[in-house]
Amino acid sequence: MTAPLHIRPAEARDNDAIWRIIGETIAAAETYPLPPDMSRADALAYWKSPAHRVFVAETEGRVVGTYYLKANQQGGGAHVANCGYITAADARGRGVARAMCLHSLEQARARGFLAMQFNFVVASNTRAVKLWQSLGFAIVGTLPQVFRHPRLGLTDALVMHRKL
Amino acid sequence: MTAPLHIRPAEARDNDAIWRIIGETIAAAETYPLPPDMSRADALAYWKSPAHRVFVAETEGRVVGTYYLKANQQGGGAHVANCGYITAADARGRGVARAMCLHSLEQARARGFLAMQFNFVVASNTRAVKLWQSLGFAIVGTLPQVFRHPRLGLTDALVMHRKL
Repeated sequence: MTAPLHIRPAEARDNDAIWRIIGETIAAAETYPLPPDMSRADALAYWKSPAHRVFVAETEGRVVGTYYLKANQQGGGAHVANCGYITAADARGRGVARAMCLHSLEQARARGFLAMQFNFVVASNTRAVKLWQSLGFAIVGTLPQVFRHPRLGLTDALVMHRKL
Repeated sequence: MTAPLHIRPAEARDNDAIWRIIGETIAAAETYPLPPDMSRADALAYWKSPAHRVFVAETEGRVVGTYYLKANQQGGGAHVANCGYITAADARGRGVARAMCLHSLEQARARGFLAMQFNFVVASNTRAVKLWQSLGFAIVGTLPQVFRHPRLGLTDALVMHRKL
């Protein structure tokens, strides 16, 4: 990516861009365990749920990625962060997800989280698995056949974790 | 337990009993990652959330345990069930949790689930870990120090899974 990437908190005016980005990934149904026919309203309500801090990654005035940051659990589990990241299909392979993850690690540290955990990384999404590993995440669990992939059928999902 | 245990769907009239049972466990903060000061309204809204099927275990007309059954994920993950079980403190050690788990496995099978997963079994809760293992669950993940136990400090939690 030649133009610089700017990551900032999402605003109401970003809803169209966020829906365009998350809608295509939800419909593909290959990486997120969400109903592929989820409506715009339901998808935005999920992504921007009150417990989520939502960010967008922008380059040349165009939103090319979005992520949310939240506590993975309440109470005794509230010191572990959780995130979901989605890059626009036409902006993949340019380091957007890596930049968003690095940004989220900083944000999580600044908010006092002690670790970050991903609960459901579909094992066939090898690009994501390798990216998270390169950013210090370890596979701490393998959930057998918990995801029904539209082409590959029953597929494992991974739990990944790193300290902050 | 000499008197027979009857497990049935929860009704509105069970709210007092359910709150008594889950409230003491939430306040103890040793097994569930929930705010220990959770109000009755919030606790019941959580336990009886729309996606949960809630059951109670009754003996001699008294509710001594409750559990919920739900899909652990949506979309491509909706074939895996998830449950939470709580036994009244004064009814422990009498097989109530075992009976509720066996009941939930049948319920999950009848609803077409292919597996059941527990996402967050606090490792210091060895009684529960052993019980789930005796009922066919395997530890498929160890989440390092993700739970702050009020006496033991940072503690692991386990992800447990079994096919149905």
